[in-house]
Amino acid sequence: MSELWNKLFSDAAVKQKASPIREIMSVIRQPGMISFAGGMPDPEIFPVKEFYDSAEIIKREGKDILQYGNTDGYAPLKEFLSEWTQERMGRKVSSREMLITSGSIQVADLLTFSTIDKGDYIVTESPTFLGTTLDMYNHGARFICIPCDHQGMLVDLIPEKVEKARAKGKKVKYIYTIPNFQNPVGCTLSMERRKKLLQVAEELELAILEDDPYGYIRFDGEDLPPLFSMDNKGIVVFGGSFSKILAPGTRVGWCFGDPDIIRKMTVFKQGVDTSTSVISQALVYEYCRKGYLDALLPKIIDHYRKKRDVMETAFRKYLPQGEVEYNAPEGGFFYWMKTAGIPTDELFNKSIEKKVAFVKGEPFFPEGGGDHEFRMCYTFASFEMIDEGVKRLGEAMRELL
Amino acid sequence: MSELWNKLFSDAAVKQKASPIREIMSVIRQPGMISFAGGMPDPEIFPVKEFYDSAEIIKREGKDILQYGNTDGYAPLKEFLSEWTQERMGRKVSSREMLITSGSIQVADLLTFSTIDKGDYIVTESPTFLGTTLDMYNHGARFICIPCDHQGMLVDLIPEKVEKARAKGKKVKYIYTIPNFQNPVGCTLSMERRKKLLQVAEELELAILEDDPYGYIRFDGEDLPPLFSMDNKGIVVFGGSFSKILAPGTRVGWCFGDPDIIRKMTVFKQGVDTSTSVISQALVYEYCRKGYLDALLPKIIDHYRKKRDVMETAFRKYLPQGEVEYNAPEGGFFYWMKTAGIPTDELFNKSIEKKVAFVKGEPFFPEGGGDHEFRMCYTFASFEMIDEGVKRLGEAMRELL
Repeated sequence: MSELWNKLFSDAAVKQKASPIREIMSVIRQPGMISFAGGMPDPEIFPVKEFYDSAEIIKREGKDILQYGNTDGYAPLKEFLSEWTQERMGRKVSSREMLITSGSIQVADLLTFSTIDKGDYIVTESPTFLGTTLDMYNHGARFICIPCDHQGMLVDLIPEKVEKARAKGKKVKYIYTIPNFQNPVGCTLSMERRKKLLQVAEELELAILEDDPYGYIRFDGEDLPPLFSMDNKGIVVFGGSFSKILAPGTRVGWCFGDPDIIRKMTVFKQGVDTSTSVISQALVYEYCRKGYLDALLPKIIDHYRKKRDVMETAFRKYLPQGEVEYNAPEGGFFYWMKTAGIPTDELFNKSIEKKVAFVKGEPFFPEGGGDHEFRMCYTFASFEMIDEGVKRLGEAMRELL
Repeated sequence: MSELWNKLFSDAAVKQKASPIREIMSVIRQPGMISFAGGMPDPEIFPVKEFYDSAEIIKREGKDILQYGNTDGYAPLKEFLSEWTQERMGRKVSSREMLITSGSIQVADLLTFSTIDKGDYIVTESPTFLGTTLDMYNHGARFICIPCDHQGMLVDLIPEKVEKARAKGKKVKYIYTIPNFQNPVGCTLSMERRKKLLQVAEELELAILEDDPYGYIRFDGEDLPPLFSMDNKGIVVFGGSFSKILAPGTRVGWCFGDPDIIRKMTVFKQGVDTSTSVISQALVYEYCRKGYLDALLPKIIDHYRKKRDVMETAFRKYLPQGEVEYNAPEGGFFYWMKTAGIPTDELFNKSIEKKVAFVKGEPFFPEGGGDHEFRMCYTFASFEMIDEGVKRLGEAMRELL
């Protein structure tokens, strides 16, 4: 340990928080471990053949795509996204309103860089995706936490909490929401609340970050319109991702927003990574252009619906009745679990002994909480492993009762 | 223009500076324009066939490389880099001392995130690469500027300037240097100054960022050891890149450093982009593993040496004698030009009229200056275009004399 570095670290570095999901990667990779931890897609459904087929674009466009690319993204991919999202967005989003990012987590990173001074506040669902909020925290943001029920964020609670923070001289900048199949809770923001959220944001002069990696993966019920499509004031920044509908190894995401904020985010991106990997963008583009994305999507939905059902069946079969509460999500990747008596810390340790992993609830709460809650991802493990893993989890629970 | 965003921007966003190189991309792309502006490799030398060949790794490792990757990088690529850099570094750099980044500009970004609080200082060569210093500036850094001569940074000037800043209560965190074929000046830090720089840094308790994208592209003379290889205190962070020796479209770079600082940078990277594109990393790895990198490197060196020579010949042929001063670089991508009387602003406008582009000197100086200097990149344009472009530049100069 070099003494010098301790003297040189920034305040952000001293206070930085690591992602517990990233940190338990080494635990997850232990031989024999069944993982319900990371929100990882099923590698068995990765379109390996089709993605390799798409690499042909290197032959055709190599001189262009091996070169530096535009910071705002590979133009053909931007055009594709404008077309592909047209129905959902209710219009063709223009190039000036769009930025291709290195995964959709970079949308939050660049928006936070563009809006947050140290100590400024973000309104967020609680619990919410810790990967994003840890980055926001590392940028100096603090949080106003709003709980969720099965219809999503309790939007009505926002104004009072924001006013209270403002009365203390705090600056509140934007509302962070995962409206569809929220991570980790699995809930979806109802139509009524979507309208209300936009209205509240407008009245309070707040922007909205609509983080939507799961929106295309709905098993049951009707699609609801994105907040971005309902916004006529330019206050919503929409974040999309190829991670869950194609492959996270591409690290290609995108955002839509008012040209003013897109411009600020683009200039920060110049210095952060110049552009998203042009190679990755081009392969994703070619994959989409060939129609593979549209062909894969129904298969992904069907596959993950089955996995959700297998997990729910296993819950009923193996978990001690009355000890644990959960709701079937209508889409996405996760079950959110609440125990009646067993503390999550103890359950986690016992489960790891039995070679089954999940993510503890606590880090999903920016202001603490969640010591009897945890997140279970059903997409990654095979059908057999879901059954076996939940069986082990049930055993762990019984030993702790 | 949404009024709201103006109220929401962070201080960094309000003050943010865009990269003039990125900004003139649209000028460069005008039909008929000959560009000596961006530091872009020659697309004619991109190994399109071999890189496509390397995409076979998608077939072989698809399930792994389409998945989320480790934040610190694709393990096989890290192992390759440890081996490949062994001779230059004098030892095998361990995995804990290494982070794969989204281009080497991200090394500077993450190091700055890890060390700079708003208003802290970085010691830098002046002029220096504006892409990096703009990002540092956007993170709130300010600069202590050290001039260069043909032997690189005037290292002896550092202590007094640092002490002066410290006497005013400023925190100085690290020294930023491009030791080989410096961008934009083309100079290389001499062996004596390398030793002195390490000594000065140690005495002043400063870290060093050694940014070395051009180190492998030497035309003449002897290689000098990297600062990282000479450092036994763990204060040097070395940044390397595949952009100039393979292809910038991959956005794959790396850094070596003390495990303490690598760890901080890795945790920030979790939130910034989770990991560098695994697809990009895997293709680069496969390309290297097959021996293509080692086979290409001598060709790149030979090709760019010829281009430098063609540019120098054209300078002698076309530029008005006595009006412009320059030195042949021993490697890298750039000539740095000083005019006797013509202001660079006027020359730039006249040149653009004549369809030839370069980068003005001024933005390379973090504290101003350079109004009679400019940067010429010889790697991108074809041999014919170098001759024709310099001819146009000479005409532009003559019209302004």
